[in-house]
Amino acid sequence: MPNPTAAMIVIGDEILSGRTRDSNMHYLAKQLTAQGIDLAEVRVVADEADNIISAVKGLSATYDNVFTSGGIGPTHDDITADCIAAAFDTHIDVRDDARALLADMYEKTGREFNAARMRMARIPDGATLIDNPVSTAPGFTLKNVHVMAGVPSVFEAMVASVLPTLTGGAPLQSVSVRLDRGEGDIAGPLGEIANAYPSVSIGSYPFNIDGKYGANIVFRGTNSDVISQAEAALRAVFPEAI
Amino acid sequence: MPNPTAAMIVIGDEILSGRTRDSNMHYLAKQLTAQGIDLAEVRVVADEADNIISAVKGLSATYDNVFTSGGIGPTHDDITADCIAAAFDTHIDVRDDARALLADMYEKTGREFNAARMRMARIPDGATLIDNPVSTAPGFTLKNVHVMAGVPSVFEAMVASVLPTLTGGAPLQSVSVRLDRGEGDIAGPLGEIANAYPSVSIGSYPFNIDGKYGANIVFRGTNSDVISQAEAALRAVFPEAI
Repeated sequence: MPNPTAAMIVIGDEILSGRTRDSNMHYLAKQLTAQGIDLAEVRVVADEADNIISAVKGLSATYDNVFTSGGIGPTHDDITADCIAAAFDTHIDVRDDARALLADMYEKTGREFNAARMRMARIPDGATLIDNPVSTAPGFTLKNVHVMAGVPSVFEAMVASVLPTLTGGAPLQSVSVRLDRGEGDIAGPLGEIANAYPSVSIGSYPFNIDGKYGANIVFRGTNSDVISQAEAALRAVFPEAI
Repeated sequence: MPNPTAAMIVIGDEILSGRTRDSNMHYLAKQLTAQGIDLAEVRVVADEADNIISAVKGLSATYDNVFTSGGIGPTHDDITADCIAAAFDTHIDVRDDARALLADMYEKTGREFNAARMRMARIPDGATLIDNPVSTAPGFTLKNVHVMAGVPSVFEAMVASVLPTLTGGAPLQSVSVRLDRGEGDIAGPLGEIANAYPSVSIGSYPFNIDGKYGANIVFRGTNSDVISQAEAALRAVFPEAI
């Protein structure tokens, strides 16, 4: 059975302007791979409703799971929750469970629970809250879309809350072989091996260290026996492989 | 006049599996912003022809420029050039100018110019080559799509070759103001300022350092006078701003 699939939507002008370097994509990619869920596509979109709604509609219809990061804080540019509601044609308003979480936290910390902060309790009807052990304001899951914060520490904590609830596939196994030869020397035999083992995904990642060319060849799949056979086929051609 | 727009397509299973952390997106975002070109969307797609072709078609029809990274090497998973040709319904084969560049380099370096390496001379009809001062194998521009390598040093060199040929807009100016207060305290006044200065894009980027909440407020636009007015409006509300 093929693994479940996923897509990610990174929401934020600050990524597209180059002001901030996104780290959530790489973090989620590693976590999903370990869980046996294939991250098939990522989109980075601006803080604009049309773009967000269109990405949510398209990707949630195509993949088993969609993860979003960013745009769920209290400021005017935090429009993700409303866009998710719009994408699914669902009503959204301040919800009692989310408001109670926030009210309790602001009371304990002595900060004012004002109108802006109340925006963080806006949750679409039918959504399940995602726990935020870092800063309380919850994420949420609506249908197959998991809506999480952009701040990396909060994003990572929310991923940890969501992943155990998802059905994973067979975890991806991988084996890496280093060859200190140019990719052009490797490509011919490697193509034949890729054809001979269609269930193994074989990638070639070139490097150039101190002027010497080489490539890391990575065999990925869910059956470690078949991966070993493909790896052995490569080593038979290039006995010097590391 | 609005700035020219751009999208980027990052091609590579290794990014989606979490094996490699992409750095080209952040690099390109900064370069485009400095040149006055708005990066509006980024997609990360797997090494699969359907996905690449669909992204190229959709984004090249929507934005002024499209930049791709990855998938132009000699191995079986390097399918970008063929996908670009397919997206534009253009013929592709080994082209004499690209072959000559590679033949010259392999002759000088004493390496074999074999069939796999010849793949890197496959260039769609009508495309303009992009210079690769790092490792010779060229990128290319076809219509409004700029096709570049995924290896960061080569990608960056190719961006340097392409950017001067593009028409930029007014470079983006930005001013950053740090407030050591929770975003929820800032959000109300900030929303009013955002409404009052619609030509200024105002972002709020929260942080939490040693348990203290704060936010960097960034004002972006092409008119520095208006940016200064919006900044002054914020400082009038929060005189303690840094």
